[in-house]
Amino acid sequence: MEKLSEVIPIVYEGGELSLLDQRVLPFQETWIKCHDARETAQAIKDMVVRGAPAIGVTAAYGACMEIAKSVGRGQGVEGAKAGIEVLLSSRPTAYNLFYAVNRVLSASRAAAEAGRDPALAAELEAKRIDEENKQAAIDMGKVGASLINDGDVVMTICNTGALAVGYLGTALGVIKTAWREGKKIHVVALETRPWLQGSRLTVYELQKEGIPFTLIVDGASAIAIQRKGVRSVFVGADRIVEDGSTANKIGTFSLSVISKYFGIPFYVVAPLSTVQLGAKEIKVEERSPDEVTYIRGVPISTAGSNVYNPVFDVTPPENITAIITEKGIAWPPYEKSLKSLKSA
Amino acid sequence: MEKLSEVIPIVYEGGELSLLDQRVLPFQETWIKCHDARETAQAIKDMVVRGAPAIGVTAAYGACMEIAKSVGRGQGVEGAKAGIEVLLSSRPTAYNLFYAVNRVLSASRAAAEAGRDPALAAELEAKRIDEENKQAAIDMGKVGASLINDGDVVMTICNTGALAVGYLGTALGVIKTAWREGKKIHVVALETRPWLQGSRLTVYELQKEGIPFTLIVDGASAIAIQRKGVRSVFVGADRIVEDGSTANKIGTFSLSVISKYFGIPFYVVAPLSTVQLGAKEIKVEERSPDEVTYIRGVPISTAGSNVYNPVFDVTPPENITAIITEKGIAWPPYEKSLKSLKSA
Repeated sequence: MEKLSEVIPIVYEGGELSLLDQRVLPFQETWIKCHDARETAQAIKDMVVRGAPAIGVTAAYGACMEIAKSVGRGQGVEGAKAGIEVLLSSRPTAYNLFYAVNRVLSASRAAAEAGRDPALAAELEAKRIDEENKQAAIDMGKVGASLINDGDVVMTICNTGALAVGYLGTALGVIKTAWREGKKIHVVALETRPWLQGSRLTVYELQKEGIPFTLIVDGASAIAIQRKGVRSVFVGADRIVEDGSTANKIGTFSLSVISKYFGIPFYVVAPLSTVQLGAKEIKVEERSPDEVTYIRGVPISTAGSNVYNPVFDVTPPENITAIITEKGIAWPPYEKSLKSLKSA
Repeated sequence: MEKLSEVIPIVYEGGELSLLDQRVLPFQETWIKCHDARETAQAIKDMVVRGAPAIGVTAAYGACMEIAKSVGRGQGVEGAKAGIEVLLSSRPTAYNLFYAVNRVLSASRAAAEAGRDPALAAELEAKRIDEENKQAAIDMGKVGASLINDGDVVMTICNTGALAVGYLGTALGVIKTAWREGKKIHVVALETRPWLQGSRLTVYELQKEGIPFTLIVDGASAIAIQRKGVRSVFVGADRIVEDGSTANKIGTFSLSVISKYFGIPFYVVAPLSTVQLGAKEIKVEERSPDEVTYIRGVPISTAGSNVYNPVFDVTPPENITAIITEKGIAWPPYEKSLKSLKSA
C-alpha cells in the first residue's frame, strides 16, 4: 500500500511525463511536463531531476514517448533515433540513463521484428524499469530497516530519498521504511554544502512523511553524534567498486571518519546496479567554484576561483560497517560479499 | 615593521573610534564611527566587531571616550558610569569586555585620586590594552610559526585573524607570521557554516596578505587533507579549560577527529587569557535556527525550528597536538603545561 505521504517526483500518464522540479524545491512545487525525448533531455540537463536511478526512469519514459511519436508518424522505431541521441547525451556520465534507454529501444525493436506494436512494447519496458526501480527501493528499505531499532536516532547526509531515486529512496528509503514499520525514530540531517540537498530536499521529504528530524550544518556532525545520541549513520552511494570503496556526495568520507571515532555503525545503502565489480579506482570530478561562493544566486565570498569543489569523496571500505542492497546486506570483506550478492 | 597588507579593524584617533564593519565584509569596506560608550556598545551588540580580544580592545576605547566626555563636562570619572554600564551589558558573556573596561575605569579613578588627569589616564590604559593585545598576537605568531615549514599546506577553520583579535590574529596570525618570515605556504580555509567566517573573513584577510589559498566547504575537509597534502591544522579557541579541552567555533571538533584519522598535527592557538585553570566543564550555547535556514537573508530550508545550532563544540585534549600561547607551546599533559605557562 502506497502511503499518501510518499513523494512521487516522476509521473507518466497518457503520453505525458511530469517531473517535480527539484531546482525550486522546497519553496515551490512546480511540475515540468515533457512529451518527447528532446524535452526530457532538457529537463535532465537542467537538473529538474537528479540522482542516477531517477534519471534512468525519466530517460526510459523519454525514449518511449519519442518512439510512440515516431511510430505514430509512420516512421517506426528508427525514426526516434535522432531524438534518442539527444537524450543519451543529456548527462554523458550517467550509467543508468544509457542502460534504461537501451532497454526501451531493444524492446521496441524486438516487438517490431516480431510484428507486435513497438510503441506499446516501449511503454511496457519503460514501466517495467520504473517498477523494478520501485521494487529495488522497497527491498532495500526492508533489508536496511532491520538495522534500525525503535527509538533510534539516525543520521544521514545529502538527499537519498524518492527525489533522487524516483521512489522511496536508498538511505532515506531505509529510514522511511523503519518509520512506516512503526519505529519511533528521529533523523539528524546534514545540510550538505554546497548544494544543500539535506536542508532543501531531505527536510522536504521528512516533513511530507512526518518523521521528526533535526537539521545541522555539516561541521556540527561530531557534536551532534556526541550529544544527540545518534545510534547509526545511513548514506547513499554514487558508485561502489570491488573492495567496497564508495563514492558518494562530498562530506560522506568526513562523516565516516567521525562515525568511526564514536564507534557507531556507518551503513551504505545502494542498489546492486551501483556496484561495479571490475572497477578499482574512482576518479573524483570537480565542479564550478560558484557552487561554493554563491548560494541561491547570492555571493558569499570573494574567493573567486580559489576553490576546491569535488563533487564527491571516496569512503574507504574499513570505514563502512555494511553495504545494504536490495538482495541483502554485504558485510566485509566486500570483495567476497558483493560478488556473491551480485551473482545471487 | 607593520606591513601595509595588515588588516587593522580597530582605529582610535583624536577621540574617535573607527570600526571596520564585519557584517558587510568582504563586499563592502565600511567604517562605523563611535564617540562614546553608548555608540560603542551599539556597535558591539550589532556585531560590527566580533571575537573576544577585538571586543575587549573596542570596549576599552569606548570606556575611555566616555570618561573623557564626562571629565570635559566637569562630572569626573563617576559621570561616565551610566554610559559604561550600557557598554558592559552589550555582550554579557564576553570576559575580555569586562576585564578591559574595568582596567580603564580603575586607571582613571587612581589618576583622579592622585590628582592626575583621569581622562588621560583612561586613554593611556586603553592604548596599553591595545598594545598588550598586539604584542600577545605577535608573540603567538612567532611561537606558532616555528611549527610551519617552507612549502607546507596548512588548514584552518573560522576567522582567527586581525578581524577577530584586533591585530594579526591567533591561528591565522601564526599562518601570516610564517608567510611574513618568507615561508612559501598554502592555506586551505574551511568556509565555516553557518556564519561563513571562513569564506567571508578569512578569505578577505588572506587576499589582503597575498597568501595563496583554497576555499572548501566544511564537509570537504577529509578529501582535502587526503588530496591536497595538508601538513597541519591550526585553529583558535573561545575558551580552554584545565585539561586542555577547547571550546571553539562549531566544526572544530569534527576537524580534530579528521586530523587525528590522517595523523597530522592539530594545533590550538590562543592567548593565555583564554585559558581558565579553575574551569572543568564548558556549557555549549545554542543560537537561532535562522542562522542555518537563511543565508544573507535568503531562505534555504523549510526546517523552521527543527535545527540544532550550537555556537561551538568542545575538542577533547587527546585530539590536540599542542596549544600555542604568547609565552610558548603547551604540550600534553595540559594540566601541567598550561599551569606552568600561566605562572611563567
